Amino acid sequence: MAYPAVGMIGGGQLARMAHQAAIPLGIGFRVLAADPADSAALVGPQVDIGAPDDLDALRRFAKSCDVVTFDHEHVPPDHLRALEDDGVILRPGPAALGHAQDKGLMRRRLTAAGLPCPRWRLVNGAAEMADFAAEVGWPVMLKVVRGGYDGRGVWRVDSADDAARVAADRPGVLLAEEHVAFTRELAVLVARSPHGQTAAYPVVETVQRDGICVETVTPAPELTPARAADAQSIALHIAGELDVVGVLAVEMFQTPDGVLVNELAMRPHNTGHWTIDGASTSQFEQHLRAVLDLPLGETRATAAHVVMANVLGGPASDPYARFAHCMARDPGLKIHMYGKAVRPGRKIGHVTAAGVDLERTRERARRAAAYLHGDDE
Amino acid sequence: MAYPAVGMIGGGQLARMAHQAAIPLGIGFRVLAADPADSAALVGPQVDIGAPDDLDALRRFAKSCDVVTFDHEHVPPDHLRALEDDGVILRPGPAALGHAQDKGLMRRRLTAAGLPCPRWRLVNGAAEMADFAAEVGWPVMLKVVRGGYDGRGVWRVDSADDAARVAADRPGVLLAEEHVAFTRELAVLVARSPHGQTAAYPVVETVQRDGICVETVTPAPELTPARAADAQSIALHIAGELDVVGVLAVEMFQTPDGVLVNELAMRPHNTGHWTIDGASTSQFEQHLRAVLDLPLGETRATAAHVVMANVLGGPASDPYARFAHCMARDPGLKIHMYGKAVRPGRKIGHVTAAGVDLERTRERARRAAAYLHGDDE
Repeated sequence: MAYPAVGMIGGGQLARMAHQAAIPLGIGFRVLAADPADSAALVGPQVDIGAPDDLDALRRFAKSCDVVTFDHEHVPPDHLRALEDDGVILRPGPAALGHAQDKGLMRRRLTAAGLPCPRWRLVNGAAEMADFAAEVGWPVMLKVVRGGYDGRGVWRVDSADDAARVAADRPGVLLAEEHVAFTRELAVLVARSPHGQTAAYPVVETVQRDGICVETVTPAPELTPARAADAQSIALHIAGELDVVGVLAVEMFQTPDGVLVNELAMRPHNTGHWTIDGASTSQFEQHLRAVLDLPLGETRATAAHVVMANVLGGPASDPYARFAHCMARDPGLKIHMYGKAVRPGRKIGHVTAAGVDLERTRERARRAAAYLHGDDE
Repeated sequence: MAYPAVGMIGGGQLARMAHQAAIPLGIGFRVLAADPADSAALVGPQVDIGAPDDLDALRRFAKSCDVVTFDHEHVPPDHLRALEDDGVILRPGPAALGHAQDKGLMRRRLTAAGLPCPRWRLVNGAAEMADFAAEVGWPVMLKVVRGGYDGRGVWRVDSADDAARVAADRPGVLLAEEHVAFTRELAVLVARSPHGQTAAYPVVETVQRDGICVETVTPAPELTPARAADAQSIALHIAGELDVVGVLAVEMFQTPDGVLVNELAMRPHNTGHWTIDGASTSQFEQHLRAVLDLPLGETRATAAHVVMANVLGGPASDPYARFAHCMARDPGLKIHMYGKAVRPGRKIGHVTAAGVDLERTRERARRAAAYLHGDDE
């Protein structure tokens, strides 16, 4: 039982930060990246280059790994099953992962399990969209069943005409959901290991802009302990119900009546980046521990308030030139850059601030993220 | 001013942990390792293989780096000067580094600056040793001027006969120091940047066994604020006096009358490993910020007590097999393994525990380090 090698399919920033977490564990960490310039490929020595839908590349990669896990959801389900048939240990497994890949499957399963979801229906064409809207009212959210992320593949439609336009652009089955008049968005990160140990992190408030997470606040401010426990228990229920192994992020809508499950991700998630600097076990270490079936780590926050703000590509073509200002102004700020070229709106890094005063902590994170983006003060 | 590349000469665990700290900064990080199996060479993509006393290898390596810094003190001073003449930016520079490489030079300089040191003399042969002992009393500490570490190259001699044996084994000049009847050992880690910004970490109590650091406790228990400030100000004075750039670790003896400087290291240091999990800026990030002339980070401890215990190679041939027990018993424990083969007494990793109760925190760290070493409970 020497140090095992974990392989992660996908070379984005999640794999990059997972590599960072793998170093102190002494384990091997391999990445299958689509491109040598991928975020994770820049920082690790064991990088295969191959597309996530190339079964031969997946098979070659898996041979060098004791456990295979994921930076994204883009491996085709057939390939996952082929790897599983080869005897590759996939964590999470294909059956679980299907629910993060297919929103229709996810809705069906969660609804069957009695978990709170927005009203939903799989719809094909403008007429079915209008029928659904007749029941739940406009606006309606339309989502691609597979492959959407960061606001892509999601449309809010306010009328039958709007819906018809989306149906014309995106023929085929879409997931229709009622538009939830939420008071805010929350996320719960939990981890689960193969033998069923689970751990839940404090509930996070997430702030989205144009479908992209721009900020998280931990713990979610003014969330009652009962509501927080309810949100955590929903996430733990899902992890068990779907037999998730690794980290599971559950994004939720908070409404006056409770919470509704919005999205699932079975991997480290943007809403858990705060854990690197603000929890005693980062989500990346936790994910590695879970997929290796090691006991899970402590999840508590190490500060009263932890705010993470994403750095999106913007006018600043050279964010490094802005480090000096950010660091001089705020010596406690933690900067994380992903080695990605600056493109408008692209997630190129994040910053984390921890402190005792929420408003001041939030201001520190926002200001630094905006400055690295290129806003001038 | 795109992201710069820092090069570290030496591929040990310090370079390994520095690589980990370099990832979130988005900078390049290159290592010159003596062997492809070196600790840092296992985790990074940009590794040159070459000996630290091979000037050609040093020159080739330096060409690919914007700044060159060090994992150890083994680069010959002539080579450092040759690199400096080539225009390579070395941080710390050769003049500063000489004081960490040559204990005689260090003693002379600190004494001239009025900094508190044990009484000392450079001695050549048994007669000079005995003369020195006649002044300060037996026992006397004898040290090689260059190249000693972790208790190697250090002898405690209790008599003229003992001294004669060492003189016969190690002809030439040695550093003789009075034996200090210290109450305990302390260490102060400070950082200094090229334009002179400095930052000091809380004073650490260090516990040595056979000349090897086995444990650190932060902050040093029951150290009065005045004494702590005194120790920090000595370390900051040395950093300025010697024009150190980067992290400087000053090991000290505490005596009833104050502190005496024992050893210096101009790089991240074992006594600063606690900062990875116990301070808002790790010593590795701090060193990178300093050598890049970025503003320094916050140095405060993030817990009431932080205890680091080294994991030394021992009966456990497969420490990974012991992770499950350590993690299950103590979910807040942080384990750091260096990717090194187990050899008796070799530093193969460390663990860190943070908590509110000192004795319990110390017990957690000690127990885990002993178990990973191979002691059975």
